[in-house]
Amino acid sequence: MSSNYRNFRNSVPWIILFLEAVFIVLFYFLFSDTDLSFVSYPDFQDVNHMVIFGFGFFLTFLKRYGFSSTGFNLLIIVLGVQCSALMELLSDFRLKMPQEDGLTKITKATVSVTAVVISAGAVLGKTNPVQLILMTVVEIIFFHISKWINSTFLQVPGNSSMMHVHLFGAYFGLAVSSCFSEPSPRSEKNASTPKSDLLSMLGTLFLWVFWPSFNSVLSVGENWKVIYNTYIALAVSAVTAFTFSAMTTKDGKFRMAHIHSAVLAGGVTLSYTDQRIQYPWIAMILGLLASVITILGSYCLQRCLNPALKIHDSSGVHFTFGFPAVLGALAQVILIAVENE
Amino acid sequence: MSSNYRNFRNSVPWIILFLEAVFIVLFYFLFSDTDLSFVSYPDFQDVNHMVIFGFGFFLTFLKRYGFSSTGFNLLIIVLGVQCSALMELLSDFRLKMPQEDGLTKITKATVSVTAVVISAGAVLGKTNPVQLILMTVVEIIFFHISKWINSTFLQVPGNSSMMHVHLFGAYFGLAVSSCFSEPSPRSEKNASTPKSDLLSMLGTLFLWVFWPSFNSVLSVGENWKVIYNTYIALAVSAVTAFTFSAMTTKDGKFRMAHIHSAVLAGGVTLSYTDQRIQYPWIAMILGLLASVITILGSYCLQRCLNPALKIHDSSGVHFTFGFPAVLGALAQVILIAVENE
Amino acid sequence: MSSNYRNFRNSVPWIILFLEAVFIVLFYFLFSDTDLSFVSYPDFQDVNHMVIFGFGFFLTFLKRYGFSSTGFNLLIIVLGVQCSALMELLSDFRLKMPQEDGLTKITKATVSVTAVVISAGAVLGKTNPVQLILMTVVEIIFFHISKWINSTFLQVPGNSSMMHVHLFGAYFGLAVSSCFSEPSPRSEKNASTPKSDLLSMLGTLFLWVFWPSFNSVLSVGENWKVIYNTYIALAVSAVTAFTFSAMTTKDGKFRMAHIHSAVLAGGVTLSYTDQRIQYPWIAMILGLLASVITILGSYCLQRCLNPALKIHDSSGVHFTFGFPAVLGALAQVILIAVENE
Repeated sequence: MSSNYRNFRNSVPWIILFLEAVFIVLFYFLFSDTDLSFVSYPDFQDVNHMVIFGFGFFLTFLKRYGFSSTGFNLLIIVLGVQCSALMELLSDFRLKMPQEDGLTKITKATVSVTAVVISAGAVLGKTNPVQLILMTVVEIIFFHISKWINSTFLQVPGNSSMMHVHLFGAYFGLAVSSCFSEPSPRSEKNASTPKSDLLSMLGTLFLWVFWPSFNSVLSVGENWKVIYNTYIALAVSAVTAFTFSAMTTKDGKFRMAHIHSAVLAGGVTLSYTDQRIQYPWIAMILGLLASVITILGSYCLQRCLNPALKIHDSSGVHFTFGFPAVLGALAQVILIAVENE
Repeated sequence: MSSNYRNFRNSVPWIILFLEAVFIVLFYFLFSDTDLSFVSYPDFQDVNHMVIFGFGFFLTFLKRYGFSSTGFNLLIIVLGVQCSALMELLSDFRLKMPQEDGLTKITKATVSVTAVVISAGAVLGKTNPVQLILMTVVEIIFFHISKWINSTFLQVPGNSSMMHVHLFGAYFGLAVSSCFSEPSPRSEKNASTPKSDLLSMLGTLFLWVFWPSFNSVLSVGENWKVIYNTYIALAVSAVTAFTFSAMTTKDGKFRMAHIHSAVLAGGVTLSYTDQRIQYPWIAMILGLLASVITILGSYCLQRCLNPALKIHDSSGVHFTFGFPAVLGALAQVILIAVENE
Repeated sequence: MSSNYRNFRNSVPWIILFLEAVFIVLFYFLFSDTDLSFVSYPDFQDVNHMVIFGFGFFLTFLKRYGFSSTGFNLLIIVLGVQCSALMELLSDFRLKMPQEDGLTKITKATVSVTAVVISAGAVLGKTNPVQLILMTVVEIIFFHISKWINSTFLQVPGNSSMMHVHLFGAYFGLAVSSCFSEPSPRSEKNASTPKSDLLSMLGTLFLWVFWPSFNSVLSVGENWKVIYNTYIALAVSAVTAFTFSAMTTKDGKFRMAHIHSAVLAGGVTLSYTDQRIQYPWIAMILGLLASVITILGSYCLQRCLNPALKIHDSSGVHFTFGFPAVLGALAQVILIAVENE
């Protein structure tokens, strides 16, 4: 550690404290309430549970980052949620819109903060806390700008305008990651142990179980159809992940890394489209395709593209969240085209 | 590994992929929907949570099967749920019944799949993945046949016809287990470590917390009475488990294995009867009896019966789920007899 | 172990069994039901989940107490819940009040039992199971007396009369702790390992996620306002905990012990006041103050006061639950004073 960094580091608490003071003051001036809650509490609780536990443990697979990932994950989320709630308040204030109730506000903020957590996966092991905090604030601002572009220029209706959160998070994370030098591949920082792999599997299970809640929390009406489609797509993804994992390895064994990323692919893909899907077989086919793309993507990227493009992606967010989200966006376009015919 | 098995193994992904293709095609032809959901989403979420986490970690107590049990558990569940949902669709189609909504379908499928997960506990460490997948499909088919017998010949009303799921799972598992040769008792495959014991305790806690949801999810009306009775029976079971564990050991210490299996006994017993129980003291007595039977059963079976009958039961599903379920069935008969008098 | 203790120990199972028999008999005579449930099942489930998992793992940080804390925690909770439900029944019976429904009864009992679990944290590693069981029964009785004093003499309305549960638990635990001799600081019993620290962090996360449920479960009307305020106070507490942890350590690193206790401070403080808080900025300021007090308290107590007063507090319940609860009580008084002006 250079003494320069040390001095910088000592100023971090003051930066966070200053941010927190700004948050409190802005909440004092901007906050007002309506009484009707649009989001039910159990739904918010599921999303909160998923973000804290799922992503917290999803990222513990590097053995040196056990505490870092659960601890920093919490810090990033609480900072990001407040920052995001504030951006909403500011935009409502600017547009003189009626405010939503408190529960809907924090649910939206929690969904937004997923982008930051995914990005953090791409730069894990390369950044210091200061950089992570900076990234959180900057990314939340950019995400709200992209959401505003979605709803203003692309005419995406209401709450669907934030379902590109996985896509945004993955590519923002890759962009940030490319600014850092790659750590030596032989260094201890990149190693994982069986125990940390198991913890990471625990995180995957949390994400898998709560994904239907995440996809349905902001959808209006026909809630159970979204839940059902997401569940069935996740189920097909999981089956496909095990199958392709056994196919692409020489000894026919299941590879944890494949399963880790591919079981969730169906859920990511359906975050865009699930309100348009009328029959479960469409969800099943999307789940299957998403899982295949993720496993092939992980194979191609790690062997060919990443070394060529000099991208270093610690947790593989490119193929875990990026590819399935692109597939989801394509499926959305096709479904709209079919509907309009 | 013989080369014969190796060749067989290489064909596994294709078998799963074929199964998955059949599922998608059948869903395409059979699926239709009604709009009203009978099961609420938080209830389904609890059951899903319990099956994935509870049974996933309940079975991690063998140190070599940490990943296997959480990973395979997921594979078994997602295959089983799709298979079970399909069996329901087929039976509805054959009987020209109106279909239930999607959420109720997957809730029922998740409850059915519990049988498979329990059976998997009996054969843990003796089967390869191919055999587990085959067992899943066969067991789901047999379970639906038994359910059909229950509702057609025994006149068990509606959703109660699937509450024998623990009984079915335990004895199906024992039957399958008797077909395999017992692994050498000194082999590493049977060993457990303190860490794996702790993980297994974590699974037990998940099952304990979500058991009231499991028992009440398919019950119609007076939901909270079922929840209350199940909770109080589980509480008495837990107290009794600690007591008897201290009594049956020489040094008066609590034995983890006893607690592991006996705290759940009350919940298993009440899965049959809880709609008929009018007063909590009946639930409390059933919880106490169930826990006593489980601990005495575990003592007798492991010392006397199992070696004599050459049954090898890796996770002790016989006394954990089998005995309390038999007690529950008896209690059900007695309660009906008392009611009719 | 003296032979005296050994004999005493052998009588423990009989004591528990006798207690259990008394519970069943009293339930038989006292229990009656109304049909309307005031508490919804998902809310009860959250509180149950939090008490079993949150406190179970919150206390696993001593490496020798992994099983003890999860196992005994379960035993204490199930005994305590039954004992507390019985105290409610007795008091309703004495006052000839109409009884509440079963779900509300066990929810209240679960909230009461939190006091016992917090006290158990203060004496962890110094008591044997017999003493813990005795403490459970005695503490539940004293808690119900204090609750009765609250509602009769201090005119605290209805369900708010039990929100001093953290305060009561912390100081009861300290009082009990002062009766035991302090274990040698160098002994293995006080040591913690990185793995047990991680498990303890897991418990903290469970508590953090479910705290809004805990604070809102017994509040009548405007439920979502309580949830929102508690969430935002917890978020500010978490940010402040990281900040002050970095400030008070020489190398500017985050200290796990600080975060462990201070992230929850906001939630504890708001358990009193959250129905009176009209604006989120008040909750945010309380969250910030609570977290600061906890970290400063942990610094002062461990260095100066505890050695002087000869208090040994294994899990630091004094500053984790005691100080923030005192702050909450003060805030309550100030808010009432401001309201009345």
